[in-house]
Amino acid sequence: MPAEAFLHAKAEQVEAALDAYLKSLDGVPPGLEEAMRYSLFAGGKRLRPALCLGAGALVGGDSDVAMSAACALEMIHTYSLVHDDLPAMDDDALRRGKPTSHIKFDEATAILVGDGLQALAFEIIADMGNIDVIREVAQASGASGMVGGQYLDLQSEGKTLALDELQHLHRSKTGALIRASVRVGAMLGDANSKQLESLTSYGEHIGLAFQIIDDILDVTGDEASIGKPVGSDAAHNKSTFPALVGLDEAQRLAREAVDAAVSTLDDFGTEADAFRDLAHYIIERNR
Amino acid sequence: MPAEAFLHAKAEQVEAALDAYLKSLDGVPPGLEEAMRYSLFAGGKRLRPALCLGAGALVGGDSDVAMSAACALEMIHTYSLVHDDLPAMDDDALRRGKPTSHIKFDEATAILVGDGLQALAFEIIADMGNIDVIREVAQASGASGMVGGQYLDLQSEGKTLALDELQHLHRSKTGALIRASVRVGAMLGDANSKQLESLTSYGEHIGLAFQIIDDILDVTGDEASIGKPVGSDAAHNKSTFPALVGLDEAQRLAREAVDAAVSTLDDFGTEADAFRDLAHYIIERNR
Repeated sequence: MPAEAFLHAKAEQVEAALDAYLKSLDGVPPGLEEAMRYSLFAGGKRLRPALCLGAGALVGGDSDVAMSAACALEMIHTYSLVHDDLPAMDDDALRRGKPTSHIKFDEATAILVGDGLQALAFEIIADMGNIDVIREVAQASGASGMVGGQYLDLQSEGKTLALDELQHLHRSKTGALIRASVRVGAMLGDANSKQLESLTSYGEHIGLAFQIIDDILDVTGDEASIGKPVGSDAAHNKSTFPALVGLDEAQRLAREAVDAAVSTLDDFGTEADAFRDLAHYIIERNR
Repeated sequence: MPAEAFLHAKAEQVEAALDAYLKSLDGVPPGLEEAMRYSLFAGGKRLRPALCLGAGALVGGDSDVAMSAACALEMIHTYSLVHDDLPAMDDDALRRGKPTSHIKFDEATAILVGDGLQALAFEIIADMGNIDVIREVAQASGASGMVGGQYLDLQSEGKTLALDELQHLHRSKTGALIRASVRVGAMLGDANSKQLESLTSYGEHIGLAFQIIDDILDVTGDEASIGKPVGSDAAHNKSTFPALVGLDEAQRLAREAVDAAVSTLDDFGTEADAFRDLAHYIIERNR
């Protein structure tokens, strides 16, 4: 599948760059550095870096510049996973088939891994010298974005949300950073305002599709594929798309979001095929 | 005492600015915003902002510019306190005489308050448009600075450190951000390289003095003054300056650091008196 090949190729480049960043660290206590490395290399799809690099390439940007931002975005994403998995949050012991960071090390180390990865992400972005990019990532990942979404998610346990509340939650929790990943790549590639608008819309639609499918996989997936126990949303009494609108309607909403994402790419030529494939892949993935 | 008047005046300005930043937030869930406000207004001395503003003024900088950085530094400091107080870390229920954030709210909220404050700090600094300042704060607060120091602190429980190991721990855990506070103020005030060097050295020396006195107060202070139980270092089996070198020698080391701090100000005139007073105040404070 082309999208898998695209993701795989980007993941290899990103992992080499992440490895180089970790190796260049100076003065980090070895145990903390090991835990940061474990958390960063626990085997993600590297979707956010791929979106950043892909958007940059699509508007003709320099891939070396976008790579720094791509790594920073993955560090932000990883820190959020490490903190979300903590006992006081979602209390997950497995992620992508491996022990989560607080299980592998301890809770204090996991908290500090997250804090340190967030600071490192901003240090890397600072080195790029682009103020707009720093602001974009800070807003998307902060209390009005990703962090606020995780707060809403925890508050919603045991409650039945309305569909628009659930969409707002996911727009914050996962959508904001996915949207920012596409935008940052486009901004670094000096996208014009029409390109930036189209790609922003692409990011918003695939972010929504991604979350709907995540909810669906928590009902229909199998543990071996998704790398963590299925049914954890139901166990936490979380509102999900399938729970609110049923499985069929949730799948229809995901398809609708993917179609909308693809239609934002109409002004781009065949060089946007990777992003078209990626949008379809999101709905077809099984993990 | 002049230093108390200086700190008080700066604290009032900083708190007004912090209040304005919180009020300008858009899209933060109300419960999370309330917890961020509680944590930021739990009554600190605002030492780091005062150092930033004071250093900026000393080299003739614009105080409005330094105020943004001062607020960001206080947000970073506050996030570190909120995370350090968590049960998995130092497990403190009281800070400055008030329930710590995870006691007042819950652990998940406290983790997210810290994460959100860190992101907000970088958003504010990004808006200032000074890349060197962003890099300075990210390095000082990250895994090779403050976060790394907290990791070393937790690892050192139950161990007896050598004096140089203890100094390294504190240089990371508290010294790095204090040093950065002075440097950022100086950088924003367009300090020349000699001024920046002197003020950097000032920050390093008062950071050390501050930590030695903190250790001493944990032995000799009273709970009503310092706002938290005394003896918590001993209870956690932490290495401290008094434990390693004795109370008298610890006091002598603190005086030596204060004298060294004051001597870095020789090239400044009377306008540096507030910083001279502040150095002496650090050793005379009882909380």
